Amino acid sequence: MATEFAPVSLCCYNIDRFLNQTPQAQTQARKNSLGNRPAEGITNLRLMFEPRSVAFIGASADLRKWGYRILSNLKNGGFQGKIYPVNPNSREILGLEVYPKVADIPEIPDLAVIVVPPSSVPQVMGQCVAKGIKTGLVITAGFAEIGTEGERLQEEMVEIASNGGMRFVGPNSNGIINPAGKLYCQMPPLFPSPGPFAVVSQSGNVVGTIIRLAAANGFGCAKCISSGNEANLHAEDYIQYLAGDQQTKVILCYIEGFKDGTRFFETAKEVSKKKPIVILKAGDTPAGAIAARSHTASLAGSGDVFEAMCKQSGVIRVRSLDELVDTGIALLCHPLPRGRRVGIITAGGGWGVLAADACARLGLDVVPLPAETIDELDKFLPFWWNRGNPVDLVAGTFGDAVVRSVETLLRCPVVDGVIMLGLIPALPPEQLARAAKQEERERLREVLLESVVQVFDKLKELTAKYAKPLIVASEPLAFGATMARKVTHILAERNAVCYDMPHQAAVAMANLARYGEYLRQNSG
Amino acid sequence: MATEFAPVSLCCYNIDRFLNQTPQAQTQARKNSLGNRPAEGITNLRLMFEPRSVAFIGASADLRKWGYRILSNLKNGGFQGKIYPVNPNSREILGLEVYPKVADIPEIPDLAVIVVPPSSVPQVMGQCVAKGIKTGLVITAGFAEIGTEGERLQEEMVEIASNGGMRFVGPNSNGIINPAGKLYCQMPPLFPSPGPFAVVSQSGNVVGTIIRLAAANGFGCAKCISSGNEANLHAEDYIQYLAGDQQTKVILCYIEGFKDGTRFFETAKEVSKKKPIVILKAGDTPAGAIAARSHTASLAGSGDVFEAMCKQSGVIRVRSLDELVDTGIALLCHPLPRGRRVGIITAGGGWGVLAADACARLGLDVVPLPAETIDELDKFLPFWWNRGNPVDLVAGTFGDAVVRSVETLLRCPVVDGVIMLGLIPALPPEQLARAAKQEERERLREVLLESVVQVFDKLKELTAKYAKPLIVASEPLAFGATMARKVTHILAERNAVCYDMPHQAAVAMANLARYGEYLRQNSG
Repeated sequence: MATEFAPVSLCCYNIDRFLNQTPQAQTQARKNSLGNRPAEGITNLRLMFEPRSVAFIGASADLRKWGYRILSNLKNGGFQGKIYPVNPNSREILGLEVYPKVADIPEIPDLAVIVVPPSSVPQVMGQCVAKGIKTGLVITAGFAEIGTEGERLQEEMVEIASNGGMRFVGPNSNGIINPAGKLYCQMPPLFPSPGPFAVVSQSGNVVGTIIRLAAANGFGCAKCISSGNEANLHAEDYIQYLAGDQQTKVILCYIEGFKDGTRFFETAKEVSKKKPIVILKAGDTPAGAIAARSHTASLAGSGDVFEAMCKQSGVIRVRSLDELVDTGIALLCHPLPRGRRVGIITAGGGWGVLAADACARLGLDVVPLPAETIDELDKFLPFWWNRGNPVDLVAGTFGDAVVRSVETLLRCPVVDGVIMLGLIPALPPEQLARAAKQEERERLREVLLESVVQVFDKLKELTAKYAKPLIVASEPLAFGATMARKVTHILAERNAVCYDMPHQAAVAMANLARYGEYLRQNSG
Repeated sequence: MATEFAPVSLCCYNIDRFLNQTPQAQTQARKNSLGNRPAEGITNLRLMFEPRSVAFIGASADLRKWGYRILSNLKNGGFQGKIYPVNPNSREILGLEVYPKVADIPEIPDLAVIVVPPSSVPQVMGQCVAKGIKTGLVITAGFAEIGTEGERLQEEMVEIASNGGMRFVGPNSNGIINPAGKLYCQMPPLFPSPGPFAVVSQSGNVVGTIIRLAAANGFGCAKCISSGNEANLHAEDYIQYLAGDQQTKVILCYIEGFKDGTRFFETAKEVSKKKPIVILKAGDTPAGAIAARSHTASLAGSGDVFEAMCKQSGVIRVRSLDELVDTGIALLCHPLPRGRRVGIITAGGGWGVLAADACARLGLDVVPLPAETIDELDKFLPFWWNRGNPVDLVAGTFGDAVVRSVETLLRCPVVDGVIMLGLIPALPPEQLARAAKQEERERLREVLLESVVQVFDKLKELTAKYAKPLIVASEPLAFGATMARKVTHILAERNAVCYDMPHQAAVAMANLARYGEYLRQNSG
């Protein structure tokens, strides 16, 4: 049961191929995946993500092997339940008692993690079923993604599980994570904090990227699932489970193709009404589709069909990994705009132009400001301000005048949401001036940090008062990485974010607007 | 001469408007800007960026004023030449002797920095000319960008300078920087290191963003110019000067519009043959054009015309601030590909698909690999590898096998450039496995750092051997911000870069390909 030759792959199986199978095969696959038993599926998934005990089959003491590395992550992550490593040739690994076989485990574990060579997986699956284990995580790769022999093995595994009432992740999965439950059962040594984002990804390495990007913004994860080949559980099963998961506020997905596109979008349509689903769909171009091993015309190859499906089901489609996470954060931090009319207020002309360009390209309306709004702004902006949208604060407008300008835009009846570019002018001007003196910098860090937080608290108040999104992008305060991280984390604790670039704010606003439109059209 | 009411703006004047003036006015403007005397212009510009002495007119002791803050930056930046603050009401500012008027300065300064209220600028300009000063930097705003009165003032200033043989930056400029000469004469307290990038920007705040993004990648700047209203010196004058500047390797521009589009592109066409010019053009959409205060149809509004002009002149056009800097770095770090055929090698399936998608969208060809390349890879990749492009390394391929795979792709005759996704598998596997053990992490930092550098050195050798670009994007090693910064800086010293995201690698390759095509078509 050594894992030396277990071909564990980070690569995702081309599940689009499924769409080109015969209707009979599709029915069989749906039956195998127990797609017609959602209620039971969700119960099982809770067992999987909150297990009291885990059987780890294919545990290894060899630190080059995944059977060691994943077990090590699980243990180092601080899992509080029982761990039962299984390996006929070891007595102890990582201080844990090892069991020769599944049958020897002194209770029925809630979850079985399987990291044995592919040819042994069906047999191990049989042992798990015999033991009465109801949920599994198959890390091992080398199944349907590598050809006929692998497909046969995979079908065998699915059949054994289905007959035994067991549901499983993978095969060819990187693992699953539930930070709140200290369940870090995955290949890379990543330990995200508990947080609002659920990640469902058909690529294991993309799970890691999403975790990293969320963490860089100060946010943790509710659940992470590398769904692998989706032989049994599909992306839509996880989404359905996550809809009911209290920790999950936003669902972030990386999808290369669908096992059952119709069922996916039926599920998404319902879930979207409760929680936003953001999807990065890969494999849209011929080269990408080949990379995703799509050999035929399928849903994966048709960006237009996918786009239409997203619109109908309220799924927010994004174009890059950064946008996936940025949009997730936007959905968490801001109310939805009632329309597409945007007011921009900027500390720098260039950023204003770039944001206006980005808004226009994304179908947002950088609306002309009515006379009364101009008049109001005239009261406290210097006489030479541009009297347009974007409102250019021009250098020399600081502190309260900036916040008042923001409020004026929020109050403006033709504005559905405000983009604020440049945080620094909103800070108290005295501190800024002193910060400009090189020798004062060290001492002013904490004071500045406090000011930033105060400004964001004020902006949050304004957001609540006018029930409109107020999205901030700014140059970071030039006070080093530690300070930047501190600011990020304090903001994240308040469900606030400061984007790094003007176009990020525009993208966030456009995606909020899109989700808002879906909810308005589909509520009641 | 107090600066209290000087309306210094970060916003950029709409220079597109110029294009809609009468031919007579255009001729006049060209004459004013001395566009027909490039040789003299360049001499003057050297004086401007490498001054032995600076007159600072409008110096202030009030730390809220730009007359203080810019002077403070100049002094704190370590400028080695003489600084002559001018203010009739002060005797000493920042420990510097203050002169009541320009005429009192005991020598002819090489550069005059002007930070007085707009109505005083023509008069001060006259004093500078009378003194014999040949170059100026007008920070003050409130000229052509605010209407008729400002336009009149600006014309007056231009005429005085032209008649006196003086050339100047601005008005409405954020300042200029020459790190090698310790000349940090600008509004924000930014002190970039000397480096390969020249920045020419019609927006002052964008200069700051570019400096920040370059620094985040470990690179400094050769020269930075916030060109402001471009009343006298135009973007193309700076480009012409930078073409001959030894420190400048790549020219990065942010442009909202052109004073003289024809002259700009004529200049760019010649300079592009020697040094790459990368441009972010803003104001392309109606909303962006309004933001750039473009009231009429002009070159700014016509993305297609601009695109065609860029193609003809070898200018590399980019779509965002990040892409501007990423592309600059790519041009610095890699040889140009001989064509658009790309080989991708990836440690993670998802990243491979995303990169292939991005390549295809950018007009790169993710080329099928010939049988002999597949055969070669078969020799050292596990039997279940995907035998396609992207080459999916699958988990379990480490160290030398990764580097050999990269070399195989570089050697492949149908591949013009290689994108390598995921650096971690290329590291020695023993270190990786040990790094996976939580308790070993601290001790392994330095060893890992060394390994990363060794891998990059090896990749640099391969790049040189095959004269093909080899672009790396990778998850950062999860060893904290300090380690990440260290890696970045060590790589930058070697003119190497590791992008953060798969699509960044694709964008970099596409822009290299584009520049390569221009050079092939226009060389000899």
